[in-house]
Amino acid sequence: MRKQNYPISIGLLLIFFTPASAADKPPAFSRTDLAAVSTLRERALVDTTAYQLIESLTTEVGTRPAGSAGDKAAVAWAQREMQRLGFVNVHTVEAIVPHWERGEAEFSVLTPYPQTMPTLALGGSVGTSNEGIEADAVMVKDLGALAALPSGAVKDKIVFFGNRMERTRDGSGYGKAVPVRAGGPSAASAAGAVGVVIRSISTSNLRFPHTGTTRYTATATRIPALAISNPDADALVRQFQSGQPVRLRIRSSSRDLPQARSANVVGEIPGTDLANEIVILGAHLDSWDPGVGALDDGAGVAIMMGVARLINELDVKPRRTIRVVLFANEEFGTSGSLAYLAANQTNVSRHVLGFEADFGAGPVWRLSSRVNPAQLPAVDQIFRALAPLKLVRGDNAARGGADLEGLSKLGMPILEPSLDGTDYFDVHHTADDTLAKVDPKALRQSLAAFATTVWLGAQYSGTWERVTEPKPPRR
Amino acid sequence: MRKQNYPISIGLLLIFFTPASAADKPPAFSRTDLAAVSTLRERALVDTTAYQLIESLTTEVGTRPAGSAGDKAAVAWAQREMQRLGFVNVHTVEAIVPHWERGEAEFSVLTPYPQTMPTLALGGSVGTSNEGIEADAVMVKDLGALAALPSGAVKDKIVFFGNRMERTRDGSGYGKAVPVRAGGPSAASAAGAVGVVIRSISTSNLRFPHTGTTRYTATATRIPALAISNPDADALVRQFQSGQPVRLRIRSSSRDLPQARSANVVGEIPGTDLANEIVILGAHLDSWDPGVGALDDGAGVAIMMGVARLINELDVKPRRTIRVVLFANEEFGTSGSLAYLAANQTNVSRHVLGFEADFGAGPVWRLSSRVNPAQLPAVDQIFRALAPLKLVRGDNAARGGADLEGLSKLGMPILEPSLDGTDYFDVHHTADDTLAKVDPKALRQSLAAFATTVWLGAQYSGTWERVTEPKPPRR
Repeated sequence: MRKQNYPISIGLLLIFFTPASAADKPPAFSRTDLAAVSTLRERALVDTTAYQLIESLTTEVGTRPAGSAGDKAAVAWAQREMQRLGFVNVHTVEAIVPHWERGEAEFSVLTPYPQTMPTLALGGSVGTSNEGIEADAVMVKDLGALAALPSGAVKDKIVFFGNRMERTRDGSGYGKAVPVRAGGPSAASAAGAVGVVIRSISTSNLRFPHTGTTRYTATATRIPALAISNPDADALVRQFQSGQPVRLRIRSSSRDLPQARSANVVGEIPGTDLANEIVILGAHLDSWDPGVGALDDGAGVAIMMGVARLINELDVKPRRTIRVVLFANEEFGTSGSLAYLAANQTNVSRHVLGFEADFGAGPVWRLSSRVNPAQLPAVDQIFRALAPLKLVRGDNAARGGADLEGLSKLGMPILEPSLDGTDYFDVHHTADDTLAKVDPKALRQSLAAFATTVWLGAQYSGTWERVTEPKPPRR
Repeated sequence: MRKQNYPISIGLLLIFFTPASAADKPPAFSRTDLAAVSTLRERALVDTTAYQLIESLTTEVGTRPAGSAGDKAAVAWAQREMQRLGFVNVHTVEAIVPHWERGEAEFSVLTPYPQTMPTLALGGSVGTSNEGIEADAVMVKDLGALAALPSGAVKDKIVFFGNRMERTRDGSGYGKAVPVRAGGPSAASAAGAVGVVIRSISTSNLRFPHTGTTRYTATATRIPALAISNPDADALVRQFQSGQPVRLRIRSSSRDLPQARSANVVGEIPGTDLANEIVILGAHLDSWDPGVGALDDGAGVAIMMGVARLINELDVKPRRTIRVVLFANEEFGTSGSLAYLAANQTNVSRHVLGFEADFGAGPVWRLSSRVNPAQLPAVDQIFRALAPLKLVRGDNAARGGADLEGLSKLGMPILEPSLDGTDYFDVHHTADDTLAKVDPKALRQSLAAFATTVWLGAQYSGTWERVTEPKPPRR
């Protein structure tokens, strides 16, 4: 049970006879709960469990795209590990997921200078015939530049989108660059193109192409779409700059297989007096296929499981229930998130606060939120409790991640310890997403920041009121 | 035209006016020659030609392994560029080269934890049947550890060599680690193994496997040999550490094709009073196939062509002839170097001084040599002329590179401005050897160091006496 720091009679008097004011309100967090913060932080900063979880997941499961054998192995792994760590109510929530198979892909420049470059099909791309597609190419910067071309300019051509993503700490460069990957193929097809090649949505100069989902429209013919790395895109730009016609050949054996069964894996640290209220910690269990998903999203899985374990090992128990949900198939349509929402239609309002970790292994540099303004003083107090971790205070317009999008749209407040994304898009969706990219020290700091924030979120003495403002557009 | 008021040159002139040793000997370098050093250096430090040569070679030719279409294109490119830059006596020296085709390779762990990892066949490796080879695996550190195993320990097994290369500035870590790649397959085969997988000879944690030549002995059965990246080798080590049997599957379609014609490309800046004496500048035109050979050895090609061009544009002409030789097929048996030596049997003694650049794009950090001790005072004076570039003084036991090995063994002195190899083996023999890995500033500094050293080597007032000591073993 949690301690009462003020007499009930005074509390009642305050409720019935005095208007709300900061000075009269009960404290947002008890002394005991605040004292537990240092225990959590100190344990997090020497934690080895989170790193070991990533090591285990990447070594014993490895790559785990939706529908694959690795996907199934990951679901089994997560249940086993949650049980080992002492979580309760460990169970799965079935999700039907698409099963797209990458196959092999080839990208060659035929003229003016023959070159073959490493390539990856965009996730969900259709394949080509076995002979591939050979066509002249048109280079455009982005969707706006494509739309500005005269009619027929890309008819029967392969369109190369050459825009380069900007490196940012908050990931905003990704938001600006990614529409080409999502919408480029259908936009080019609608204009008559027969194929698309994009400069990877990437901040690195390494020769790794980056994959990621493309989204075909219902109307345009589905055309194959590949990505090449930044250094190869630079080389291709130089071929265009020679002034000579650029002719390309692309080939891909990507294909759709029948849908498959996967599952969200759920485990809890039970609450006490407010056990019916759920603080949900989301991360995703699937990965893209070229890498082993250490950063995306092994790190998120490890942080969330690590936070729940640290809280579970405190002497004082959480008021609200802490529920870790490892979502199926975030990468290729958030099927797990949608299945979770469908299974919890009558429980939406029980999800009183959400956290998501899907942006690498840290460190955490900022605390943002999307809460009802009435709870901003509590968020300020949480921020003060994070002082030893040296964060900056973000705004109240946090977007959250893709897996909590549904709950967030339905008014669930979000607290967002922001993971530093400066280098994240060097690795994101590449073969290079391996354990070697996880900095154990940054991971421990992230664990400390999440543990502090989750814990205080679970102990808040007030009510996490619903957020009523419309969700802001993605920045 | 260039500025003449560079303050450091005044200091240098003061140094040069003071004879280093015996006052009655003629100075090793004339005032004019020493004055030209600052011109060369200042021009090198703002040079754009060398970088553009790498850009052109990697864009217009790209990958160029021995016997490939790129190999032929590179020979044509080099002749064209030498002529464009004003070299004379531009010609080729034919070399017959092996033509090994990589094909595709696959590497999978079957047990305990199924994983597929990116792999590259070692250069020259035989392929497998189409079904590949499936076998239990034995992990050993290196050749010594293999030799220490009991008889029959690797019979019908795949041997995994797990030793990790050490990062060093002078490349000595490579010399220690590379015997596994060169000799591992035949050593394992002699002990009964059916295949070999090595941890890449690499200092990076990126998921690029590194290729490079393996050398089969005449007696052991040729078995297929693959390399995996450091992060994958780490993951494989963890599979072994699980204590469960590790079973692997390897597949490769590598094969030998008939030998092909290639050529060394030669061009000169003619000497004047000592035109019959040749200062040879060597680099190699071929590359391994996965990358486009920007560092290995586009940078060396560009530095040597850039040095010759800078010297050619001086008002004062070189005394000795400066001969740039871009060797065919350094990577897979130094056929170009051997052909050059065969074609120059009667001219060996005319090669009075050699330089080789085959260690990336710099910066140059050291001046080493292998000269007759009588010329060490001249080397000391050259070192002082390099002072603005902040080198350290190396010893007189320089090895030189592979392409000048033959001439060096026959007594030709070598001067070695040492390229910094700290990061070189992050990229060496990988797909990631692209223009993006060339630091233009380091390249310009390297150009300045080589230009200074080559120039003074060509102008030396004394005789470059032959080296009579036996060549030291590779460190």
